[in-house]
Amino acid sequence: MAGRLIGLGVGPGDPELLTLKALRLLRASPVIGYFVAKAKHHAGQGGNAFAIIEEHLLETQQRLPLVYPVTTEKLEPPLTYEGVISDFYDSAAAQVALHLDAGRDVAVICEGDPFFYGSYMYLHDRLSDRYDTEVVPGVCSMLGSAAVLGVPLVYRNQSLSVLSGVLPEDELKHRLADADAAVVMKLGRNFDKVRRVLRELGRDGGAHYVERATMREQRIVALDDVDPMASPYFSMIVIPGQRWNG
Amino acid sequence: MAGRLIGLGVGPGDPELLTLKALRLLRASPVIGYFVAKAKHHAGQGGNAFAIIEEHLLETQQRLPLVYPVTTEKLEPPLTYEGVISDFYDSAAAQVALHLDAGRDVAVICEGDPFFYGSYMYLHDRLSDRYDTEVVPGVCSMLGSAAVLGVPLVYRNQSLSVLSGVLPEDELKHRLADADAAVVMKLGRNFDKVRRVLRELGRDGGAHYVERATMREQRIVALDDVDPMASPYFSMIVIPGQRWNG
Repeated sequence: MAGRLIGLGVGPGDPELLTLKALRLLRASPVIGYFVAKAKHHAGQGGNAFAIIEEHLLETQQRLPLVYPVTTEKLEPPLTYEGVISDFYDSAAAQVALHLDAGRDVAVICEGDPFFYGSYMYLHDRLSDRYDTEVVPGVCSMLGSAAVLGVPLVYRNQSLSVLSGVLPEDELKHRLADADAAVVMKLGRNFDKVRRVLRELGRDGGAHYVERATMREQRIVALDDVDPMASPYFSMIVIPGQRWNG
Repeated sequence: MAGRLIGLGVGPGDPELLTLKALRLLRASPVIGYFVAKAKHHAGQGGNAFAIIEEHLLETQQRLPLVYPVTTEKLEPPLTYEGVISDFYDSAAAQVALHLDAGRDVAVICEGDPFFYGSYMYLHDRLSDRYDTEVVPGVCSMLGSAAVLGVPLVYRNQSLSVLSGVLPEDELKHRLADADAAVVMKLGRNFDKVRRVLRELGRDGGAHYVERATMREQRIVALDDVDPMASPYFSMIVIPGQRWNG
């Protein structure tokens, strides 16, 4: 009998935001898969999701690091980021499949939620036709951010737009213009562009900024005071919907 | 010293999707507030959020039901739904404040996440200026639905539109037309309208439907097979973003 592939959401950063179900399946899984950047892996670290759950692991559970071959460095043609990453996911899926074929369940841990911009999705798409899968949803960073900011996100029949800061300025502007409530993720080097768009739309006044929400290094800064050169990838802008006074 | 107001996300339905933090604060709170429909309250029930956490409560913890005065019944003028509900939230906030003033923490439990379309928001808006608050984010129903459907929701730099089925047909059509990925909540009597819009846009083929995701009564049905007269309020349509083969 083949093992089961488990996508395990471990929440946005605070280890206490793990669910009871994630904890149970984490403890029961003989193999724990996790994505990790090359530099962190070489420094003996396991990445953000791993840090959240490390305290619960036993010596007997096998660690399966899935080490990204690239991050943001320039690649020499004919290499492309997309090509390199695609090959990497193929090989990561093959590594996971070896354990599944041997009858071992593999829990792949994911910061936030597995199906909400998670790398687990690329394993799922490659393996779910062949193996039993289970996905344990997690608290996503967007809701972790709203909670620590203390701002209700979306009221009644308002629409919520979840956007990536990587989008071109025009598209960001277009999508933010008719959003009741919005969240802009993946800021990092895109912060300045996003703030400019919000100012042009007159929506910067209602926008909140937070870095690494619910983590130990969490930082809440007024939008005007953010240093655009120092905004990390794990930062977010939250634009709550208009308060309903009903 | 006044008590603390706690907005406690308890997840989408499966009691195991409670977080460790929610469980800790639930057990430590002398007063447990919960919103409940009048009919359920009169039948001796506590509502969906209450059912999720009931097993963890001790006899000594005080239950504070906040009973909605109306649901969908017709009101005689000059009464309006908005007016009645607004008065109700005022009175609910006052009930909670009595405990806070007496120095007792009040945990208000919320299905899903407190700041994601949760009734807790109306207490928060009325009380957070005067009392310390803490919000514990939860797994929202949207991510619970994607997990049980087994469909990755949103890839890379795709945008996600979260919409209410209550929206007018034109607005739904406009917002769904340019959504990469979308979730339509609050279906119930709006189901037929939403399915019609999806068919007109040619997006019904990629849409998934689920009722009461992660609950014992969960039901997954093909979109074409849903009886529009029988779709409950706690049903959802999930339209995942286009799969990325990278």
